[in-house]
Amino acid sequence: MGKHKVVLYIAMSLDGYIARKDGSVDWLDDVEGDEVDNGYGKFYDSIGTVVMGRLTYDEVLSLTDDFPYADKPCYVYSRSKQVEAPHVVFTDEPLESFIPRLKDTSKGDIWLVGGGQLVQTFLEMKLLDEIYLAIIPKVLGEGIRLFPKGTIPNSFKLLKMEQLGQIVALSYKVIV
Amino acid sequence: MGKHKVVLYIAMSLDGYIARKDGSVDWLDDVEGDEVDNGYGKFYDSIGTVVMGRLTYDEVLSLTDDFPYADKPCYVYSRSKQVEAPHVVFTDEPLESFIPRLKDTSKGDIWLVGGGQLVQTFLEMKLLDEIYLAIIPKVLGEGIRLFPKGTIPNSFKLLKMEQLGQIVALSYKVIV
Repeated sequence: MGKHKVVLYIAMSLDGYIARKDGSVDWLDDVEGDEVDNGYGKFYDSIGTVVMGRLTYDEVLSLTDDFPYADKPCYVYSRSKQVEAPHVVFTDEPLESFIPRLKDTSKGDIWLVGGGQLVQTFLEMKLLDEIYLAIIPKVLGEGIRLFPKGTIPNSFKLLKMEQLGQIVALSYKVIV
Repeated sequence: MGKHKVVLYIAMSLDGYIARKDGSVDWLDDVEGDEVDNGYGKFYDSIGTVVMGRLTYDEVLSLTDDFPYADKPCYVYSRSKQVEAPHVVFTDEPLESFIPRLKDTSKGDIWLVGGGQLVQTFLEMKLLDEIYLAIIPKVLGEGIRLFPKGTIPNSFKLLKMEQLGQIVALSYKVIV
């Protein structure tokens, strides 16, 4: 099982999208959260390692000049040609060996940042322990779904819920 | 505006489905709610008129011998041949005349029971005032979506949230 857990911490629209079709998350900007940071700071402090897919990495880069996870080990899953980039390590190591090793060696929990395809693979391989969903009170109509059609059926146990301004924050344990 | 509001009160899986592909809602059966009725009784008391689509009506009939809304006026939207049926009135009157009249004459709020197609039409025509979502902690992987791809973008205002066992109940006002 490993010492640490793998957590998906992500914002989702009411109709299940985590990003627009082009990966953008501009629809998160005008959402009224709580006064501080919607609990993000506390969550981020608990994280030892950051993992994301290549498209999510590209989107993060497009949002800011300062890579926001520069202070943690950060792995980017990519099947295409591996490149050198600051702050991150590109990898295509099989998840079934990589993630259990991370769970043992990480200095805190492992944050699966996204995107949809990597989340689905984690669910299929039963590598995801918890999901933290920030439900945004909007319908987008189209985009990249957190749980695309064909996601394997799964059950979850509700651990916690809280209201952060207009955001509903739900913590679930993945029932394997 | 009318005296009464139109409310969608519906259960949705974490991946946005309100029914399986064949319309069935068997996945709701083993969900741990609260001790009583997940607030349904109080909600139902506030309802003066029930409205649903034809497929939803068929599903309701298949679930029980006793039509559960027999004590309220109940309208079934259907574009196909109108039939005689106990407890309900089939209609294909344009929503833009029917719903405002209902809002004035109903003896309580109007419950839009479903399904997905009728909900989308109500949203497009800005006829829906509030949605009450019971979030079920399951991923189904496929089925009938509450907000199918192509639903017009919309924003909502969170009115209330509560935990009912494993169910997260969210009330939203539709922002027109």
